[in-house]
Amino acid sequence: MQQFQPITDDEIFEAHIGGKLSVELTAPISDKRELSIAYTPGVAKVSDAIHKNPEMAKSHTWANRLVAVVSDGTAVLGLGDIGPAASLPVMEGKSALFKRFAGLNSIPLVIDTHDVDEIVATLVRLKHSFGAVNLEDIAAPRCFELEEKVIEALDMPVMHDDQHGTAVVVLAALLNASKVVGKELENLKIVISGAGSAGLAIADMMIHVGVKNVLVLDSKGVLSTNRNDLAGKKLTIASQTNPEKVDGDLSTALVGADAVIGVSTSAFPIDGLKQMASDSIVFALSNPNPEIDPAVAREIAKVVATGRSDYPNQINNVLAFPGIFLGALDAKARRITTPMKVAAAHAIADLVGNDLSADYIIPSPFDERVTPAVANAVERLAK
Amino acid sequence: MQQFQPITDDEIFEAHIGGKLSVELTAPISDKRELSIAYTPGVAKVSDAIHKNPEMAKSHTWANRLVAVVSDGTAVLGLGDIGPAASLPVMEGKSALFKRFAGLNSIPLVIDTHDVDEIVATLVRLKHSFGAVNLEDIAAPRCFELEEKVIEALDMPVMHDDQHGTAVVVLAALLNASKVVGKELENLKIVISGAGSAGLAIADMMIHVGVKNVLVLDSKGVLSTNRNDLAGKKLTIASQTNPEKVDGDLSTALVGADAVIGVSTSAFPIDGLKQMASDSIVFALSNPNPEIDPAVAREIAKVVATGRSDYPNQINNVLAFPGIFLGALDAKARRITTPMKVAAAHAIADLVGNDLSADYIIPSPFDERVTPAVANAVERLAK
Repeated sequence: MQQFQPITDDEIFEAHIGGKLSVELTAPISDKRELSIAYTPGVAKVSDAIHKNPEMAKSHTWANRLVAVVSDGTAVLGLGDIGPAASLPVMEGKSALFKRFAGLNSIPLVIDTHDVDEIVATLVRLKHSFGAVNLEDIAAPRCFELEEKVIEALDMPVMHDDQHGTAVVVLAALLNASKVVGKELENLKIVISGAGSAGLAIADMMIHVGVKNVLVLDSKGVLSTNRNDLAGKKLTIASQTNPEKVDGDLSTALVGADAVIGVSTSAFPIDGLKQMASDSIVFALSNPNPEIDPAVAREIAKVVATGRSDYPNQINNVLAFPGIFLGALDAKARRITTPMKVAAAHAIADLVGNDLSADYIIPSPFDERVTPAVANAVERLAK
Repeated sequence: MQQFQPITDDEIFEAHIGGKLSVELTAPISDKRELSIAYTPGVAKVSDAIHKNPEMAKSHTWANRLVAVVSDGTAVLGLGDIGPAASLPVMEGKSALFKRFAGLNSIPLVIDTHDVDEIVATLVRLKHSFGAVNLEDIAAPRCFELEEKVIEALDMPVMHDDQHGTAVVVLAALLNASKVVGKELENLKIVISGAGSAGLAIADMMIHVGVKNVLVLDSKGVLSTNRNDLAGKKLTIASQTNPEKVDGDLSTALVGADAVIGVSTSAFPIDGLKQMASDSIVFALSNPNPEIDPAVAREIAKVVATGRSDYPNQINNVLAFPGIFLGALDAKARRITTPMKVAAAHAIADLVGNDLSADYIIPSPFDERVTPAVANAVERLAK
């Protein structure tokens, strides 16, 4: 299934020299006249006008549609807490994707503190510099408190993409996978392996769309109100899931399950997968190494998806976040709501249409219909 | 002397719609292969490498050569304390100039606090996001304390351009103006009208290069150790200038002066200008309205300069700051020192060469030799 020549390390490092972004002028400054318009004395008229009518900052600066890609570098890809400097290549990449897939300007801001209130205070002080915040690669459980506080503190769209971008694309893929296997989404027994930012957000989303039997596992086993080691968001999710009070490990949880979604590095046990219900769904989303070899999974399950671009059914956040932010900004929305996220998932799923098959449950990131469809769906709900 | 068609307000506002900057990709993301290099999984190798060897952040992200243009919006052009949102068009313009004149990437960060320590803390937390700080439009006297603290806190080039950019270009212009009038710079009696960020920085620079008789005026008159209303930087400058203990207003100060430099909105009294020494030098730098009509000044003085592009001898910071930051970044300098600033001034002045005349003491901002000459001068001193 490899679709392109293997990428060498040299190629990767070469491509990152000097970074991946450039700040350009939207109009040339070729002579004194153009300089006098873009800078002094002309610019003084614009600043004065904004001072007298603050609403004009929205139309006459770039800030209102600028996305800040913000990280503290504590949960960078699968690398963990590698710090703000080492997280920057990812944030630059994210900003590149915002431009490439939604035409949005974006700047990476990496913050050298783990203190939630300091991160919030930093963003509040900078709030006139941008118009939306994409939180990225921030470790659970701090990410939940942080996102909540940033949303409260800022009058603009804010989303922690590791949570909600992932949940949206997983929902889109599940909507179509359940059609392929001929089952109702709400009636699926869904096992989520991983209780970090993505796992808990996917669980939230499943609960929101009415899935009745969801099991979430952390490294110690199934989240359950029987356990006394849970707190915060994990405890909340434990109380909202696992209706049969199952205790145990992943193999136990998988017995009779219709779908398993891996968002941790824990491998899927082959014996466990074999005990799932017939026509099962396996999403092995750990990247770059899926929780199970997708070729092996495909022999057991009816539908298999991964986070990789070299296998069918790539669950990639780039299907969601560019359109979600674009739609929210186009609609001048102050919040990115759960209904908007659900609508985004349906918009993504619907693009597959009649081509739906076990190997095509989700559009390609390069399907140019995706961002406009997501943005329109989000914008409609914001009105 | 008008060199171009008058600029209309409509034209100015039209040019600012949506802002003046755009963030672009340095390489295309056209297919899955390019996506895998710029983002996951490829980018993980770069982040991991930086985590293991932090020095690699300097070569493999954009941050090391990215200039943050930082303002609290308290002294924006001649508009005063109009706040961070209204200052943003100026900061966007500044970022545009960094790219246009030095090829440097730059992002505007406007900060919603007047508290020096909060501004410092904000920049310290964001320090891995950029590689240099241009402080802009921050009111005196807070700007002096702020710049000092930011320089101390950050291991990168930091400069408050309203102070030092102005001082560098004024020195460049004075070096050549003194040649035109056939006097030694050190022997000039120089009156500086205005004791804000620019006035005090120019005074500092004049003292540094050995000018023996400098008078600085604030709204209450000449700074002098006879006065008991002075504190901080003004008091320091009072003790380093005014050797004859002159008290009084601008007219008093101008008697026998060789040069007057206006960096406030206070008009120059014509009678006062007439009492200056013969072959006098008048820099009326207030923008957009010079302290005196340059045509009137030209009837009295031998050399006249303004901040405007539609008269000869435009004293424009864009002659200095792009090259100063470019040279400091090229040299990997940790500080922008006073000798670097003096060298920058000489580099600018020297470009005029044999074309020197009363109406040509300073090169045009569009003289493409300026930034490389300034950058080279700064870089040489950093080695």
